[in-house]
Amino acid sequence: MTWAATILTLYPEMFPGPLGASMAGRALADGRWSCEPVQIRDHATDRHKSVDDTPAGGGAGMVMRADVLARAVDAAVDRRPDVPLLAMTPRGRPLTQDRVRALAAGPGVTILCGRFEGIDERLFEARAIEPVSIGDYILSGGEMAALTLLDACVRLLPGVMGAASSGDDESFETGLLEYPHYTRPVEWEGRMIPQVLRSGDHAKIDAWRKTQAEIDTRSRRPDLWERHEDARVQSPSGARQRRKGPMG
Amino acid sequence: MTWAATILTLYPEMFPGPLGASMAGRALADGRWSCEPVQIRDHATDRHKSVDDTPAGGGAGMVMRADVLARAVDAAVDRRPDVPLLAMTPRGRPLTQDRVRALAAGPGVTILCGRFEGIDERLFEARAIEPVSIGDYILSGGEMAALTLLDACVRLLPGVMGAASSGDDESFETGLLEYPHYTRPVEWEGRMIPQVLRSGDHAKIDAWRKTQAEIDTRSRRPDLWERHEDARVQSPSGARQRRKGPMG
Repeated sequence: MTWAATILTLYPEMFPGPLGASMAGRALADGRWSCEPVQIRDHATDRHKSVDDTPAGGGAGMVMRADVLARAVDAAVDRRPDVPLLAMTPRGRPLTQDRVRALAAGPGVTILCGRFEGIDERLFEARAIEPVSIGDYILSGGEMAALTLLDACVRLLPGVMGAASSGDDESFETGLLEYPHYTRPVEWEGRMIPQVLRSGDHAKIDAWRKTQAEIDTRSRRPDLWERHEDARVQSPSGARQRRKGPMG
Repeated sequence: MTWAATILTLYPEMFPGPLGASMAGRALADGRWSCEPVQIRDHATDRHKSVDDTPAGGGAGMVMRADVLARAVDAAVDRRPDVPLLAMTPRGRPLTQDRVRALAAGPGVTILCGRFEGIDERLFEARAIEPVSIGDYILSGGEMAALTLLDACVRLLPGVMGAASSGDDESFETGLLEYPHYTRPVEWEGRMIPQVLRSGDHAKIDAWRKTQAEIDTRSRRPDLWERHEDARVQSPSGARQRRKGPMG
């Protein structure tokens, strides 16, 4: 089955963009996913095709109109009622690898891309839209955020990464940063690959990697480490198993 | 002066990609910034032009070689020694709007894009590279992360956004989420624009927006709220002023 991405945007020419190259591009050509941008302006009703207006209460910039966006959203939902509906906005819930995994396991995603100062808040009250943020910084619009979310989902679709990499060991999949990697040459600029990785003792290697992941998470991401520790306390079987729910 | 972005990547065709459209695209055409992708493979030394090898200690996928990447990095640094050198990796420091603002205020950025399982860790020990993560999810490579970081920086370059929007009120610039927006029509599907925003009383409007930003941050992003409150306690003049340092 084709994983269907529909993107409501003022810049349809940005899609698939970078997702037309590399792994995601091959998967797109193979029909493992589809990417359909919809021009929001086509849902405007006045003869100027306006999609925005000045902010109520004053201030800089323009705000996207609830009525026009609702028409675009309703048309997309009519066409694919089974697909989750998201809006990329800095006011949204931070994207996590758990959410990416759940989306990739579903039939696809419909994404509304905000522009200008933002979206009329009444749209979020009147329609079931999940606001999503990819990080605590401001972009010129939701398009780059949508491309980022799609990249994260597409690599998890069946057959895209291939058997070479299951992705199970990667950062965040275990609630920790991934352990550090090394490859040949064994010596480079006087620096050696750590001895244990050249020992051939797989139990030792696994233990070393686990310890390194813990050390690095603790020092680089105390916030992640704290959540990891909280999850361990709440579930003695470990954070890893806790994640294997229906969302995982 | 032109803000100079150099991107070390195995997929130069991904750049400028979506940044060739809209606001960033016009700024690129106007020479406000430049975007030069460099093919990492051109810095390989063997006749197979190999850039990666199997992970020391075993495991899925491939690891990018420190020796080849160092040659690509050194060439970029020789050419632009004044420009900060970043690598996009999920093991990096989370990107913040403060960091974006500092980068946009500088001469540009050189970005190394990881691919496959990751980068030989010795590269980070041997070269002054700032590892940066755009969020707690896994992408197919650093390219989409680099595009996201560039989008965030470019919109802040002089003359790009225009006078219409200074960006000062937006999410994270005050340490809080931005307040909700509304625009015409005044009534939509029986929902009204909040009365206060139609009052014309600017002091009341400012107070309402500040309260809404606090309410929304508290309920949607307790993590941001906690940091905001900590900053207030540490500096009685408020988080807003604290951010107006040389980095702001």
